[in-house]
Amino acid sequence: MNSNIWRTLLFHTRRFSTTSTKNAYRSFTKAALLVSGGTGVAVICYMGNFPKVHAASGVATVSKAHSKWMADSITDVEVFEQNPNDMKTKMEMMILRMQGEICKELESIDGDKKFRVDRWTREQGGGGITCVMQDGTVFEKAGVNISVVHGTLPQGAVNQMRSRGRKLQGQSLPFFAAGISAVIHPKNPHCPTIHFNYRYFEVTDETGEKEWWFGGGTDLTPYYLVKEDVVHFHKTLKAACDKHNQTFYPKFKKWCDDYFNIPHRGERRGVGGIFFDDLDYADKDELFNFLTTCAEAVIPSYVPIVQKHKNDGYSLGERQWQLLRRGRYVEFNLIYDRGTKFGLQTPGARYESILMSLPLTARWEYRHEPEVGSKEDLLLQVLREPKDWVS
Amino acid sequence: MNSNIWRTLLFHTRRFSTTSTKNAYRSFTKAALLVSGGTGVAVICYMGNFPKVHAASGVATVSKAHSKWMADSITDVEVFEQNPNDMKTKMEMMILRMQGEICKELESIDGDKKFRVDRWTREQGGGGITCVMQDGTVFEKAGVNISVVHGTLPQGAVNQMRSRGRKLQGQSLPFFAAGISAVIHPKNPHCPTIHFNYRYFEVTDETGEKEWWFGGGTDLTPYYLVKEDVVHFHKTLKAACDKHNQTFYPKFKKWCDDYFNIPHRGERRGVGGIFFDDLDYADKDELFNFLTTCAEAVIPSYVPIVQKHKNDGYSLGERQWQLLRRGRYVEFNLIYDRGTKFGLQTPGARYESILMSLPLTARWEYRHEPEVGSKEDLLLQVLREPKDWVS
Repeated sequence: MNSNIWRTLLFHTRRFSTTSTKNAYRSFTKAALLVSGGTGVAVICYMGNFPKVHAASGVATVSKAHSKWMADSITDVEVFEQNPNDMKTKMEMMILRMQGEICKELESIDGDKKFRVDRWTREQGGGGITCVMQDGTVFEKAGVNISVVHGTLPQGAVNQMRSRGRKLQGQSLPFFAAGISAVIHPKNPHCPTIHFNYRYFEVTDETGEKEWWFGGGTDLTPYYLVKEDVVHFHKTLKAACDKHNQTFYPKFKKWCDDYFNIPHRGERRGVGGIFFDDLDYADKDELFNFLTTCAEAVIPSYVPIVQKHKNDGYSLGERQWQLLRRGRYVEFNLIYDRGTKFGLQTPGARYESILMSLPLTARWEYRHEPEVGSKEDLLLQVLREPKDWVS
Repeated sequence: MNSNIWRTLLFHTRRFSTTSTKNAYRSFTKAALLVSGGTGVAVICYMGNFPKVHAASGVATVSKAHSKWMADSITDVEVFEQNPNDMKTKMEMMILRMQGEICKELESIDGDKKFRVDRWTREQGGGGITCVMQDGTVFEKAGVNISVVHGTLPQGAVNQMRSRGRKLQGQSLPFFAAGISAVIHPKNPHCPTIHFNYRYFEVTDETGEKEWWFGGGTDLTPYYLVKEDVVHFHKTLKAACDKHNQTFYPKFKKWCDDYFNIPHRGERRGVGGIFFDDLDYADKDELFNFLTTCAEAVIPSYVPIVQKHKNDGYSLGERQWQLLRRGRYVEFNLIYDRGTKFGLQTPGARYESILMSLPLTARWEYRHEPEVGSKEDLLLQVLREPKDWVS
């Protein structure tokens, strides 16, 4: 098998953690059958509808792509080769590529630290690749993770989906989920934190009905407000949205402001961006292309801002303010974020990957109130009353 | 009115924040009537069953006690004077006294910083006194709060109580709650963090049935394990329990280990102590006396440990480990703690008082694992497998 050759080569040239290599070559073919096992139609469709000639040309494509990934794919490449048009294959290959591109870009900006790469498998099905850089010159903590998991949805997750309006029948539902998720906390308080997450979900209910949807978003959390940076960030996201649907940006911008809210403080976490979930209307491939465009917009939306400010001077007071705002970031993630809650409730979830979103350091001062009219106060005004950045 | 004299004196001699003094002299008599308004019996009982002679002798007692409080009581002292035997009066006077004693003790140990005292009122009924010391010589952050609130229980809280087995009928239930709650984070990693909370709750359901219960506990979170300190702490709590009921300590020690659990990490927050809730059996006054003994045991259980270690030398590595453990403290409080969740859900809750439990600084490192056999690892073993400290 061709794919074995580059897999062997790769094994000797890439960084892996000890724990992560152990299970790296476990075959996922059986697992893939298991995921789709909830519906007879899906099994046939997944395993049988690609003639051998496609699979053969797939080898070259997968092999070429692989050299840019941070680690071996979660699903066995044979499954990719046999199912190049399946959305599971497309999503996993897209997130593997984006993880590679973004990690390389951040390593080149940092110039000092490299990402630690942990490839892990989940007992109940699937696994992930967690890439974390800690205590770099530019980046204090950056995590870029992918996960491709399948199995049976826990009851809590089914209820959460139903509460969002999904008509899922039954108790114990087979699911597949693939996503990329990242949080990048730079050291310099003049460089904002960015978070993004793009994901694809499939659930088969007990009537055999298969539901699928996409979700995701990118949002920015500055510590000091530089209007033109925020405008650049939002304009880049708007251009990505507009390429696919003119209604997306205004809708998803508002959704983002509503989602990243810290109700007990009456503040947003940051200056927003875009956020969406349950995207299942329109053409599936077109939605996948939209997701890809969004993921590809991460670097151009963010990197210029980091490059601009990474060498800015800052005072101890500015650093303290950054740490206080990171405390708010922790509050949002641990109290309100649906992803974190869902993650920690999922049996066999890898909590270290979920909690990599937390900053290296955070601070809580009782009743900290910035001076009226100060730069810190200026930021707070915008967090309390989200603004329109592109018109 | 006698009580007006010392109130006026006090106003000129004690520290108050600007915001807290504004509503300090609002009369609470109407509010107190409102709380008890759910049941005719309660109103009569609360306002009418103490002859004037008791009220008059109450003035002297209340007046003497007041000089040791951190601020004016939440409920008007006239209500105390008229109802000296009502559990609401007893609880509020006990927590006011304990807050005063503990704050004074901590100030004397710190020798540098004083507590900032914020007396606040809650629009929906009641209020509290939040005392916070920040960035002291010995104490990095210490909060000792009391709150005395009443009004209508939010639906979420009613459901939470029902899920614990309380048979409350109806949707919108009048309640009264009084409690003291404190978290003390010393600077030195060799001094443990302590938390305690003692509370009394009354709810009247729509059938007019009044339920009441006590809850509380004290628990210790060391960063390094000093066996004899933990034994001293547990023995002091056991002695307090044994004074009232020999079955309390073993039961409440286990409850504490079970409650302060961080399931996603498979670790307890600290080395435990005692924890209990829904204590409504036996004689009400006897349970109040038990609560009082527990609250009085806080200083003897904890202060000797702080005195012993407050000047210990420590390395940067030991400080970093302390901050990592404080990250776990934040995880427990924001994800799992019922008090924090209940607090943040309560309309009109003062989030600054609820979140004062968070440390001044915390740290999250991806996959931090102490060296096997190190002092840090020794602590982890105990957090993973709670021990018996007194036999």
